[in-house]
Amino acid sequence: MPKPSVRAVLLACAPDQRGLVAKLSHFIYTHGGNIVDADQHTDHEAGIFATRLEWELDGFLLPRETIRDRFAPVGDALRMQWSIHFTDERPRLAIWVSKQEHCLIDLLGRQRSGDIRGSIDLVISNHQTLQPIAEQFQVAFHHFPIDTASKHSQEEKELQLLRAHNIELVVLAKYMQILSPDFFKSGMQVINIHHSFLPAFPGAQPYHRAFTRGVKIIGATAHYVTQDLDEGPIIDQDVSRVSHRDSVEDMVRKGKDLEKIVLARAVYLHLERRVLIYGNKTIVFD
Amino acid sequence: MPKPSVRAVLLACAPDQRGLVAKLSHFIYTHGGNIVDADQHTDHEAGIFATRLEWELDGFLLPRETIRDRFAPVGDALRMQWSIHFTDERPRLAIWVSKQEHCLIDLLGRQRSGDIRGSIDLVISNHQTLQPIAEQFQVAFHHFPIDTASKHSQEEKELQLLRAHNIELVVLAKYMQILSPDFFKSGMQVINIHHSFLPAFPGAQPYHRAFTRGVKIIGATAHYVTQDLDEGPIIDQDVSRVSHRDSVEDMVRKGKDLEKIVLARAVYLHLERRVLIYGNKTIVFD
Amino acid sequence: MPKPSVRAVLLACAPDQRGLVAKLSHFIYTHGGNIVDADQHTDHEAGIFATRLEWELDGFLLPRETIRDRFAPVGDALRMQWSIHFTDERPRLAIWVSKQEHCLIDLLGRQRSGDIRGSIDLVISNHQTLQPIAEQFQVAFHHFPIDTASKHSQEEKELQLLRAHNIELVVLAKYMQILSPDFFKSGMQVINIHHSFLPAFPGAQPYHRAFTRGVKIIGATAHYVTQDLDEGPIIDQDVSRVSHRDSVEDMVRKGKDLEKIVLARAVYLHLERRVLIYGNKTIVFD
Amino acid sequence: MPKPSVRAVLLACAPDQRGLVAKLSHFIYTHGGNIVDADQHTDHEAGIFATRLEWELDGFLLPRETIRDRFAPVGDALRMQWSIHFTDERPRLAIWVSKQEHCLIDLLGRQRSGDIRGSIDLVISNHQTLQPIAEQFQVAFHHFPIDTASKHSQEEKELQLLRAHNIELVVLAKYMQILSPDFFKSGMQVINIHHSFLPAFPGAQPYHRAFTRGVKIIGATAHYVTQDLDEGPIIDQDVSRVSHRDSVEDMVRKGKDLEKIVLARAVYLHLERRVLIYGNKTIVFD
Repeated sequence: MPKPSVRAVLLACAPDQRGLVAKLSHFIYTHGGNIVDADQHTDHEAGIFATRLEWELDGFLLPRETIRDRFAPVGDALRMQWSIHFTDERPRLAIWVSKQEHCLIDLLGRQRSGDIRGSIDLVISNHQTLQPIAEQFQVAFHHFPIDTASKHSQEEKELQLLRAHNIELVVLAKYMQILSPDFFKSGMQVINIHHSFLPAFPGAQPYHRAFTRGVKIIGATAHYVTQDLDEGPIIDQDVSRVSHRDSVEDMVRKGKDLEKIVLARAVYLHLERRVLIYGNKTIVFD
Repeated sequence: MPKPSVRAVLLACAPDQRGLVAKLSHFIYTHGGNIVDADQHTDHEAGIFATRLEWELDGFLLPRETIRDRFAPVGDALRMQWSIHFTDERPRLAIWVSKQEHCLIDLLGRQRSGDIRGSIDLVISNHQTLQPIAEQFQVAFHHFPIDTASKHSQEEKELQLLRAHNIELVVLAKYMQILSPDFFKSGMQVINIHHSFLPAFPGAQPYHRAFTRGVKIIGATAHYVTQDLDEGPIIDQDVSRVSHRDSVEDMVRKGKDLEKIVLARAVYLHLERRVLIYGNKTIVFD
Repeated sequence: MPKPSVRAVLLACAPDQRGLVAKLSHFIYTHGGNIVDADQHTDHEAGIFATRLEWELDGFLLPRETIRDRFAPVGDALRMQWSIHFTDERPRLAIWVSKQEHCLIDLLGRQRSGDIRGSIDLVISNHQTLQPIAEQFQVAFHHFPIDTASKHSQEEKELQLLRAHNIELVVLAKYMQILSPDFFKSGMQVINIHHSFLPAFPGAQPYHRAFTRGVKIIGATAHYVTQDLDEGPIIDQDVSRVSHRDSVEDMVRKGKDLEKIVLARAVYLHLERRVLIYGNKTIVFD
Repeated sequence: MPKPSVRAVLLACAPDQRGLVAKLSHFIYTHGGNIVDADQHTDHEAGIFATRLEWELDGFLLPRETIRDRFAPVGDALRMQWSIHFTDERPRLAIWVSKQEHCLIDLLGRQRSGDIRGSIDLVISNHQTLQPIAEQFQVAFHHFPIDTASKHSQEEKELQLLRAHNIELVVLAKYMQILSPDFFKSGMQVINIHHSFLPAFPGAQPYHRAFTRGVKIIGATAHYVTQDLDEGPIIDQDVSRVSHRDSVEDMVRKGKDLEKIVLARAVYLHLERRVLIYGNKTIVFD
């Protein structure tokens, strides 16, 4: 299989208007670009148009470093929010954990297999429990104990560390602390895994509550984190059947498999630049 | 395929204690019964033992009409709640609807195919919209318009009708009225279909709310109805993936398929005597 | 909810080449069209580009009856296979059945609910068993008994009947006969439901074979019918978990639910003009 | 949560006959045992009764080391095939791999989390590629290169190694060699993961063939290995939806998640003594 050539990816949304597809594809075509993947969605209620366009740089007449500047007036004229990415970029990630390791091992294992289009550069935790796992996979581990008094200053230091390493994405892989509102002012993108099919069982102990309620299906939800706990835009969800035979412990066990798969899918989709956040929802161009 | 012989089914739960399985199986064995299906569950937290035993009447030494009396002292000694059923019984059902027909057509179609171990004898509605469908399948239709003033007296009349027809089970197949607390004093068993994966989106307009929240999975829940709206014991649930491409109308369309399948499965399981209610949960012996 | 305006739908595939999206969207934009839904796919291995474009006729400058003629040179220049449809068209369908009714009742029920964008005008069967169901839903029923000697001439008559009613799509809803090669020379499009997750268990008695093999999942497959039995392009599939507790009869019962849902979804997708056949595969723009 | 007490597990099957449940439960009850989990299944076609009984050793009057001997005459009288296990046993496992690591990392990660009721003592491979992963998790790695000439003698050595370590279960976690018939004469139990929903796409390159066939669902199958390649008793299967948007590489990526989850579930069920092999099928008491 030949190595795929480098591609540019445009992720964009704008107020719906006639000619959007024509104008965007014209920009790429007139510069010699070959569109290899295009997807579009119109939310008629909200009057919003969204698109993802992927084209080959090979043969494209604009030098790579000028593409964003050359596209800017096109986007401005359409009152568009947009970003352009390149498929050979390797965004840097930090994984935040507490004491449970299944999501961390899974993500580090995928990095080991070359299945993550990015680089997990840091593991950060409020406990030291999982330090050996980070080390085993040769990823730097940083311990930031958190209590009520220290939370604000510790988060400040964590942000400094993230910036020092040019981290683009924080992945909360069973991090059992709530980030403070100030953290989000940093503009850092954060993905979390919640162990229920939200909006069912938001907050703590969803498996216990699922057991008590007697549901026949449990789930997991990966979402971007906002200041509103468990209310951010959902990226992916999945579910598993349970029955009266499943104890809370069985639900936890089955749930762990859901959690790690759903979180990894969300990280994958984000890094493939397939997720567009819009209002409190996502469009996943998959 | 030879016609299966008639079987007895014991559904029972009791405080957990040593020897329960031995005592129950001994009762059947000493009377010459051949157990063809046995399932059991112990809820260790609640200290509750539950079982479903199915044995052939063919060769059983107790005459069918005496079995319940002969079993009673065994059950009493174990402080057991129990019921015994026979697989050739045909319980009578009433289907309650409002204006949406997909669940009604589905259930009547299954009756037509001989796939329901019971007899749908009545269709009851607060509207006349679906009268032609009941008639088309040659099932009696009764119209009980409901408003705030008439609700109590209409429900009284409905209960009288149910009793006059020896109805054992009421199936709310998209009946968009809330039954009043008095109705439940009658002891009538009622199954409802709710168009969300409860406890997500209880109450009205779940698809609109699912759309607004941006969930990636929608669902349906069949449950026994109690006085606490949408809080009764869950019998079955199922889900379907949705994406940003699905409008509210698409969710309604996909949801209809979930609703009719999940409701029919719950009715099937109930009529097969596979559902044991216990606290606010069910054990489904499937 | 306001009635959606009429839209045109272009379904097309062509050898991949630069500028395809630009040229197609330019055609629509320069004639004042507003694209409300666009999807595209490139099969890099096969060098094939495929697209579905949907735009509003309201405000489109070309009169509806001229659109196909005006598009033809654009399509020719791109060596494109294409069709243009309008969302207010109501294609005519014939449902073919043998003795099992669950898929027929389901499809007729959907027509009753207004959920099919088309018109089921005929029910055709090699048996008389299901005539009462067609009549109950007030759809014309035609009986064509088939044996080896009569097969060819009966199919001829069936084709004449289809043509006389301008039938566009034949739906084999558990029609247990194999159509002869000559039938396909007519160019009629035919969708079939097979009761396995093809390519597992092609041919007869898939549930019996699934039971014997001890699979933990059963399925159903809706596909376009070609001369190669059970080998035509797959439109949709779905599955259901089974266990050792499921007898062959249980599998048949669970399978019926799969069959009717999967077949209905395939018919829906076809009538929404969301399915593009290409080689022996489909692209489903959903 | 208090530590659960040790329990005995009986897995058994026998020709169906009256009184089986009574006799088995009587044996446990008369020795003071408290049954905490009981499941039973009768295959009426084959005339086979199968059961799994789990009871607490705490309070059981027979000393643990005598239970098998005391049960033997009961089992013999019923012409029963049976095994008795204890929940504090830690069976030893060997994982066999070739070059793909996702299943290996997943299983070793579960061992690290304490989620496997057993002990992975060996990793065996025909390549050296994954040696660092075994070492990273501190599990002994053994390299047995295989070619046509050496296969027989290498398998001999592998069996010696397994016996020397008292290995009870071999897990083929993407081991891309076929074991020779002689290997199975050893009586070693072997679980394999196949990357398709068998019996679809047996043999090599199932994802390529799934892509070519245009299926809408891919799957994975965990099964006991017999001399008949890909034909052994199925323990578990799971599936994932795919579409035309998925390339072969996407299917491989989605399939890896299926493979590791399904294989881990099968190993879990085996070690929990929940799987009874019977003919070429399994009964999974879950």
